[in-house]
Amino acid sequence: MADRQNLALVGIGKIAVDQHVPALAASPDWQLAATVSRAGTVDGVEVFTSMETMLEARPDITTVSLAIPPVPRFAYAQAALRAGRHVMLEKPPGATLAEVHALRALAAEQGVTLYTTWHSRMAHAVAPAKAWLAGKTITRAHITWREDVRKWHPGQDWVFEPGGMGVFDPGINALSILTEILPAPVHLQSAELEFPANRQTPIAARLHFSGNVTADFDWRQTGPQTWDMEFDTTAGPMALRMGGNVLEIGGQPSQGENTIMDEYPALYARMAELVAAGRSEVDLAPMVHVADALTLGKRIVTDAFHF
Amino acid sequence: MADRQNLALVGIGKIAVDQHVPALAASPDWQLAATVSRAGTVDGVEVFTSMETMLEARPDITTVSLAIPPVPRFAYAQAALRAGRHVMLEKPPGATLAEVHALRALAAEQGVTLYTTWHSRMAHAVAPAKAWLAGKTITRAHITWREDVRKWHPGQDWVFEPGGMGVFDPGINALSILTEILPAPVHLQSAELEFPANRQTPIAARLHFSGNVTADFDWRQTGPQTWDMEFDTTAGPMALRMGGNVLEIGGQPSQGENTIMDEYPALYARMAELVAAGRSEVDLAPMVHVADALTLGKRIVTDAFHF
Repeated sequence: MADRQNLALVGIGKIAVDQHVPALAASPDWQLAATVSRAGTVDGVEVFTSMETMLEARPDITTVSLAIPPVPRFAYAQAALRAGRHVMLEKPPGATLAEVHALRALAAEQGVTLYTTWHSRMAHAVAPAKAWLAGKTITRAHITWREDVRKWHPGQDWVFEPGGMGVFDPGINALSILTEILPAPVHLQSAELEFPANRQTPIAARLHFSGNVTADFDWRQTGPQTWDMEFDTTAGPMALRMGGNVLEIGGQPSQGENTIMDEYPALYARMAELVAAGRSEVDLAPMVHVADALTLGKRIVTDAFHF
Repeated sequence: MADRQNLALVGIGKIAVDQHVPALAASPDWQLAATVSRAGTVDGVEVFTSMETMLEARPDITTVSLAIPPVPRFAYAQAALRAGRHVMLEKPPGATLAEVHALRALAAEQGVTLYTTWHSRMAHAVAPAKAWLAGKTITRAHITWREDVRKWHPGQDWVFEPGGMGVFDPGINALSILTEILPAPVHLQSAELEFPANRQTPIAARLHFSGNVTADFDWRQTGPQTWDMEFDTTAGPMALRMGGNVLEIGGQPSQGENTIMDEYPALYARMAELVAAGRSEVDLAPMVHVADALTLGKRIVTDAFHF
């Protein structure tokens, strides 16, 4: 394990504890060498509460992974890049498109790697679905992404604050798969967005794209959660279920169910490849669709939402 | 004038009559050979009400200029590009960012020119302001863009409908100048957007960018209209007034006032250059800032607005 590179994880919240820390613990590429967080800590790992202090104290840390919410993320990413460190960004990669353009330019200037991760693209069935769709004609596609915000973001008011993206926080995962697997890009034609009367971001969205592609995002689903993408093609139907983990062709699962979540280990492996190759990977397509929905969408006020 | 190329103008509304038609009448490069519009016509110019009919009937028309509102514009642009014609787009170039990305790809495939115009960049003082700012350090910039929607868009409800952009319809002109002249790009950090209780798009916006750059857009200003951009630099103050037509350095106008509007003649001249060079010019930076504002902005409900 002597060749593992030192990495700092910034933002020790739910996603860090649930996904990043276990993925790093099992990684052949990375050693979790420090954390930066106001409150969270990881047993046995050096703790910093200030990014600047960490960057100064630990020049041996080559890479910084940011798992904090999108609005404050830019300043941390900028500081790390300016200090010559490689940077990996949780999704969405920023609060605005322009700030990610700026980070991309800064990473190029500094000669370091910037990776805008989209964890759902690493789900088991995404690559097989992409391969199956290649060269086929899609006549209709529909995404149903319905989950319970109280389960996944308990008490996290920031998701409903400006820049928190609301239901697009999970919905962008579906869009990250869609933009990865479609043979040709689509664009939004209309959208309806439901805003709770007491909140700044939508709790539900219905999107209508070109090419007969639609999406139904809802954050109010209790009971079983739904993460389905269904495609009709001239070669028959295909579906991705369980958030991209199960592939169904012609109505039949095409492989054994594999619902072990190893999206984050795959992201960290990809980051190691990018750093080794001296490359960046910055894909804003999922975020462009969200910005387009918030630009073009019809706003509907709905019931107030309280956690 | 035998070497003028035939051009069709699509959308004979206020902006076409006020700007495009006079610019074309005086152009050494273009012959207005046809119009496509449901209702509007231009004296002495062949009239079509259908784009498909025009494209079929007039293969001699090499270039199509689109002056229709952003939401329906994509289908017209796509049809023209697919028919192998060069396309020039009024600002903003589309209702979504993704559709402009798609048009850019289509134009490249077809080997024709796509030009996303930003007329305010052609105002007299923009190029001198850019030259003056180059290499200087900006410590503060503030944009004030306040006009009367009833004067400029009388009864045009589409500006308040989804995709109509509201006060960003004029505000994007300021952003098109800003993104042209700043020595380094900025990104939005926060915004407040005022939505009339009965409308889908904002009537006022206050934007806070990185680098101490702010903007105040308002569509409720009666009396004198204000289109000012003020810059403080370590080499003293500079201002652009009259929508980019007047340059002030150190508080003094740096040249005689020149408020003749020849932005549209300059756009058509630029289009001729691009076509001759076999190049496209697609710059989405102003539109990215608007999408970012609608993604990140805090929404404030204000008084209902009626024309």
